Amino acid sequence: MTTAKPLRVGMVGYAFMGAAHSHAWRTAPRFFDLPLDPQLTALCGRNDDGVRAAAGKLGWGSVETDWRRLLERDDIDLIDICTPGNTHAEIAIAALEAGKHVLCEKPLANSVAEAERMTEAAQAAAERGVFSMCGFSYRRTPALALAKRMVEEGRLGNIRHVRAQYLQDWLSDENAPMTWRLDKSKSGSGSLGDIGAHSIDAAQWVTGQQITGVSALLETFVHERPLAGDLVGLGGHGDVGADAPRGAVTVDDAAIFTARFSGDGLDGGTTSAGAVGVFEATRFALGRKNAMRLEVNGTKASLAFDFEEMNVLSFYDAAESPDAGFRRIFVTEPEHPYVGNWWPTGHGLGYEHGFTHQVVDLVTAIGAGEQPSPSFADALQVQKVLAAVEGSAAESSRWQEV
Amino acid sequence: MTTAKPLRVGMVGYAFMGAAHSHAWRTAPRFFDLPLDPQLTALCGRNDDGVRAAAGKLGWGSVETDWRRLLERDDIDLIDICTPGNTHAEIAIAALEAGKHVLCEKPLANSVAEAERMTEAAQAAAERGVFSMCGFSYRRTPALALAKRMVEEGRLGNIRHVRAQYLQDWLSDENAPMTWRLDKSKSGSGSLGDIGAHSIDAAQWVTGQQITGVSALLETFVHERPLAGDLVGLGGHGDVGADAPRGAVTVDDAAIFTARFSGDGLDGGTTSAGAVGVFEATRFALGRKNAMRLEVNGTKASLAFDFEEMNVLSFYDAAESPDAGFRRIFVTEPEHPYVGNWWPTGHGLGYEHGFTHQVVDLVTAIGAGEQPSPSFADALQVQKVLAAVEGSAAESSRWQEV
Amino acid sequence: MTTAKPLRVGMVGYAFMGAAHSHAWRTAPRFFDLPLDPQLTALCGRNDDGVRAAAGKLGWGSVETDWRRLLERDDIDLIDICTPGNTHAEIAIAALEAGKHVLCEKPLANSVAEAERMTEAAQAAAERGVFSMCGFSYRRTPALALAKRMVEEGRLGNIRHVRAQYLQDWLSDENAPMTWRLDKSKSGSGSLGDIGAHSIDAAQWVTGQQITGVSALLETFVHERPLAGDLVGLGGHGDVGADAPRGAVTVDDAAIFTARFSGDGLDGGTTSAGAVGVFEATRFALGRKNAMRLEVNGTKASLAFDFEEMNVLSFYDAAESPDAGFRRIFVTEPEHPYVGNWWPTGHGLGYEHGFTHQVVDLVTAIGAGEQPSPSFADALQVQKVLAAVEGSAAESSRWQEV
Amino acid sequence: MTTAKPLRVGMVGYAFMGAAHSHAWRTAPRFFDLPLDPQLTALCGRNDDGVRAAAGKLGWGSVETDWRRLLERDDIDLIDICTPGNTHAEIAIAALEAGKHVLCEKPLANSVAEAERMTEAAQAAAERGVFSMCGFSYRRTPALALAKRMVEEGRLGNIRHVRAQYLQDWLSDENAPMTWRLDKSKSGSGSLGDIGAHSIDAAQWVTGQQITGVSALLETFVHERPLAGDLVGLGGHGDVGADAPRGAVTVDDAAIFTARFSGDGLDGGTTSAGAVGVFEATRFALGRKNAMRLEVNGTKASLAFDFEEMNVLSFYDAAESPDAGFRRIFVTEPEHPYVGNWWPTGHGLGYEHGFTHQVVDLVTAIGAGEQPSPSFADALQVQKVLAAVEGSAAESSRWQEV
Repeated sequence: MTTAKPLRVGMVGYAFMGAAHSHAWRTAPRFFDLPLDPQLTALCGRNDDGVRAAAGKLGWGSVETDWRRLLERDDIDLIDICTPGNTHAEIAIAALEAGKHVLCEKPLANSVAEAERMTEAAQAAAERGVFSMCGFSYRRTPALALAKRMVEEGRLGNIRHVRAQYLQDWLSDENAPMTWRLDKSKSGSGSLGDIGAHSIDAAQWVTGQQITGVSALLETFVHERPLAGDLVGLGGHGDVGADAPRGAVTVDDAAIFTARFSGDGLDGGTTSAGAVGVFEATRFALGRKNAMRLEVNGTKASLAFDFEEMNVLSFYDAAESPDAGFRRIFVTEPEHPYVGNWWPTGHGLGYEHGFTHQVVDLVTAIGAGEQPSPSFADALQVQKVLAAVEGSAAESSRWQEV
Repeated sequence: MTTAKPLRVGMVGYAFMGAAHSHAWRTAPRFFDLPLDPQLTALCGRNDDGVRAAAGKLGWGSVETDWRRLLERDDIDLIDICTPGNTHAEIAIAALEAGKHVLCEKPLANSVAEAERMTEAAQAAAERGVFSMCGFSYRRTPALALAKRMVEEGRLGNIRHVRAQYLQDWLSDENAPMTWRLDKSKSGSGSLGDIGAHSIDAAQWVTGQQITGVSALLETFVHERPLAGDLVGLGGHGDVGADAPRGAVTVDDAAIFTARFSGDGLDGGTTSAGAVGVFEATRFALGRKNAMRLEVNGTKASLAFDFEEMNVLSFYDAAESPDAGFRRIFVTEPEHPYVGNWWPTGHGLGYEHGFTHQVVDLVTAIGAGEQPSPSFADALQVQKVLAAVEGSAAESSRWQEV
Repeated sequence: MTTAKPLRVGMVGYAFMGAAHSHAWRTAPRFFDLPLDPQLTALCGRNDDGVRAAAGKLGWGSVETDWRRLLERDDIDLIDICTPGNTHAEIAIAALEAGKHVLCEKPLANSVAEAERMTEAAQAAAERGVFSMCGFSYRRTPALALAKRMVEEGRLGNIRHVRAQYLQDWLSDENAPMTWRLDKSKSGSGSLGDIGAHSIDAAQWVTGQQITGVSALLETFVHERPLAGDLVGLGGHGDVGADAPRGAVTVDDAAIFTARFSGDGLDGGTTSAGAVGVFEATRFALGRKNAMRLEVNGTKASLAFDFEEMNVLSFYDAAESPDAGFRRIFVTEPEHPYVGNWWPTGHGLGYEHGFTHQVVDLVTAIGAGEQPSPSFADALQVQKVLAAVEGSAAESSRWQEV
Repeated sequence: MTTAKPLRVGMVGYAFMGAAHSHAWRTAPRFFDLPLDPQLTALCGRNDDGVRAAAGKLGWGSVETDWRRLLERDDIDLIDICTPGNTHAEIAIAALEAGKHVLCEKPLANSVAEAERMTEAAQAAAERGVFSMCGFSYRRTPALALAKRMVEEGRLGNIRHVRAQYLQDWLSDENAPMTWRLDKSKSGSGSLGDIGAHSIDAAQWVTGQQITGVSALLETFVHERPLAGDLVGLGGHGDVGADAPRGAVTVDDAAIFTARFSGDGLDGGTTSAGAVGVFEATRFALGRKNAMRLEVNGTKASLAFDFEEMNVLSFYDAAESPDAGFRRIFVTEPEHPYVGNWWPTGHGLGYEHGFTHQVVDLVTAIGAGEQPSPSFADALQVQKVLAAVEGSAAESSRWQEV
């Protein structure tokens, strides 16, 4: 490890995602063999006091208050973007042009147009050996990575049904405070981009199929909320009082849509080629805390996942009939993705491990001179689905091709 | 019990539903106090040998091979209709006009027009003291009846989300045989009317709200199936061979739709009044056997039910935060709906108990001279939702008002 | 069915078990093909008004108030004993000697001595074609019957661990009323004989092994309870008031013991032959309603069952490693024990089905002239385990051979 | 953070526990505010190459190959002992005498005598401001810490039942290799000390009661195992071949025992004061990976925990009857123990967080000059229970006072 060349990271933003990414950069080389040795070189944020305090706490070696200055530094190899979506395009494109690798949080951008420009920049940079990745970290949950592997191995047969839910409840209280995530100018959309984007990416990635069309409905339940002092919070329980000044919620609280998938080309004869899907993203499902769920039904087997039991993958194999049943696979065996580098069987992982695995995959790809996955192009496809959902919802749920 | 006046039943049809109804008529008076004493007087079916064998097995006192003849009999007080949907309107209307009470299986009819004629006949008959009920038997599952009670008591607050799934897998095998349930001329629709109708009724009944509009997608995965000798089977596992002659499947295999609800009038201020809903009905969800699921999220609490654990209702009460959690209520206490007449706490009920409870409610209402619930008018409203789903699916998922 | 010779039943007792048995006698011929046609001929109880009311409600054709008179009747072929344990021996032996088949509720008796006399009588009667069975009805739960089949098929390999819990909570309230089940002179023991006996029988039957020794601890938490008017209740929630007169609880409230099993003779070499077991029976496990649980770990696979989810058997097959996991088998397939005679896949059964299946197995054996299972000899073996448990508990948990 | 005085750690041992502890020392200050700043100063192991490689990987600043040398160093404030149990007493006592704080892995020692000497040394050191703690890390699982809090708040009432299982299966394969954990001279005992000790500590700590007596049974299923090259492995799946040389397993494979608890002094009148308990520890429960389970039934409420769902605590409150049910509390709210320093609601923690919390509690206590918990005296009490279990098992399960 000590002989590996350093990979000097500069991170922009230090709220929830910043803490998760810092932990990942620090932890990845302690459990995995990496071709490059990540250094927490610089942390960037607009507020000087804030960024200094965060850098001390999170373990970064220096600070900047202007991301443009960060990009000018010679001692930075990679820019990690953990800011709201409205800033992604500008920072990412500039960073790539400055020859820095980029890790960009999801959703890639707040519009398809921005995402397209970012993808162009990413493809141009890749030809110069400068790489980029979008942070769909749920792909790095071992159970979902195992799900993808099982689909790729053909164990599910043709896929007929996808049902994806991402259910949270932290906005259910109508006095939960306003945050930047509820301001369309910053976040682009609400539950759709914040959590629905994860479901879309996971569904497409696990099945190996793309969503080809959608019919959607968006709903905002609470139209204004009390303004808290700090709008960059984590979305906790804070009730700031009924008499606080209120700000307008300008995004969707819930997004639900039906979808069709591209098919796997395996079919023929009397059976349809593509799957149908149902998606729901909401932060008002009282009692559901982080229920990022995905179920896939094939002609031979089914898979089901719920992040509230993130170390488990449920698998039903019809060949075991009549004694078939959903098998609760505890995804903690050394043979399972990422798991062998951690603890003995049965000792489960937590939320932040996905970010550590993301760093592992990113650094491994950069070290090998290969394009990491998901690329900006992959994330652009998700952005197009988000746009189709918004388009359909705006036109009385009319079917919208992606 | 022995002093109660008899209620002489004539039942039409004796397949799956006929067996369930026979058990219910026989069992209800043994566990519940009824104002009338049900008699299994006559069983009717077209095939003379078949109906005689069934009557002997199921315990009916006589047989008929023509339902019109059954209606002419003076010793019949109630007609129980367990035949495919295309026959419901004619039999039910004639029975009501003949002065017989009617219990009619769901869906009420195969079209809104038929259902409207049936509802008119039912309302006219009710004025003469002749009553009718549609067999949405899931309402009689104690856990769902408890769910409705909790909503009525205001324990959920305003309702924001409804998610209803009815997932089965008995058609997933593409060589599962053709049945009347896959023939649109008999069944009206596929998964939509067969199982989706249960979800629609349950969602509306539990929430006390009506669905006001939908956007839908229907899909048929397997377009033809081997013809078995008997098309009136229960939908088992029989694979009749790849070289059997095949018939065309003319119904949907899966129905998925989004919906809006009428609201409860409790809202005001900054909060929206109605709930949004997601529905999915399929018989291709490999591994899901009879997953009739309903989840309702309110502003104060949430409820979740899955018929695969039919004796359990999950309840989340936000007032218990931060130690709140979905409470797994084992619905077997004497205070729970229907339960006190059965076994001690913890000794769960099975599928057929819903039918027994249905008889209890029906006979109790008839004995009291009151309209049983759900009425044909209630069932007509479900029929209108089914029609709106089909209408939306036929027009690229365009929003369709109910 | 109508051509089958009648089997005329006389039942003694009509509380909880009487209602369950009546339902079973009535229902079995409607769903199963039986060689004899059960008739609910006579119901016997000491209280004339009570037995007449019960007979009307439960559907029995005549009544008796003296069980000796019942045995004298020519029109009775089988005596079904549903009374407290202290009466079993006398009634059963007299019935067998009178040439009546006998179904006797569990535990077989209140002492090994009584059980031995009953077994002798049963064996003598069997030689004359008069048969007897003890009512360990949980054997007839499809999921447990499937468990036994899987062990017999060798799918578990050698068995190493048995853990059996029977957890209820209906006595947890210290003001729950006194019942005959808490009076040692009537019930013989408390949780041990009432529910622990089920666990012992199920563990031995599923594994095919006998318990060879135990070390036990018995505990009584509540030493006296309010006397209710009727001591033959079902053990409900009734709190009869803190100032009611109180009676002494003379039985155990909880029984816990470790055990060794006889082994299956399959072992050799370096592996031990027998399993070790842990048993717990209590009616004070607040929140557990009827958690009759059994888990068996073998060298190749494991099985787990909980009656609170009675339609499910969990099965872990090590050969599926690293993607092994407890498979949640929904035991509702037509290939599963008893299930094919009921409803389609996924439509679960309830508590009383075990009693119906018990009648099916009993009548089938009598019709074939064969010894039904479990015989009185099988039940005697359970009685010996109960006695060993009591013996060990009385001697500071010293190991007690069975 | 940067202003906190350093706490310079020297760790002995670097296998499974060493990796977990290293991560904890590194991570704790990044998420929690600590009064001292932990430094990973020196790692100690007998093999020079091995310890150097481990130090590089795990991030330790220097190495030693003799623990005595480590104790002599002035730049070490705390010794963290992660070696097999037979070495604990010597290292810990010497470290305390050298003025170093001590964190010692569990079980505290391999005998009561050793544990007593360690406790004496600890108490003497504490008077000099030198503190020690035993590493019962499961206490730091948020769900178990919440369980303890609920008991302390009186929400359970008097405790009647404790059932504790620690089920693993990594030794079920009889060709799994020999490890030091199976060698009594190193580990002291098998499943009993390795995992049963966790159950004993957790049961006593959560209930606030001590075990006063036990009746036990120990069993060794596999008496010899193939010798692998490295005996300090993590207990993985490695099958080293049937023809490898074999070593004798000298410890128990399974430990099961009944127990009585000291009571909480809250009782009176007709109710017994103490709880009864059942314990089982095994590494042969095929399919159970790390099922460290604890259930406690009180007079008012019950609690249940399973480490396989480590972020969940189940809670049953009888006051909610008849709509009571085990509430599945997702222990990820900011109000829950330790949780507020991590991620938003619903984003679960993993196995290693317990070790991080252990460091937090240890460093916080040292910084405040207070005795950390569990002390060596607490761990000695566990050791006495382990000894009583072994004593009872050696005497035909005769009851053994602790």
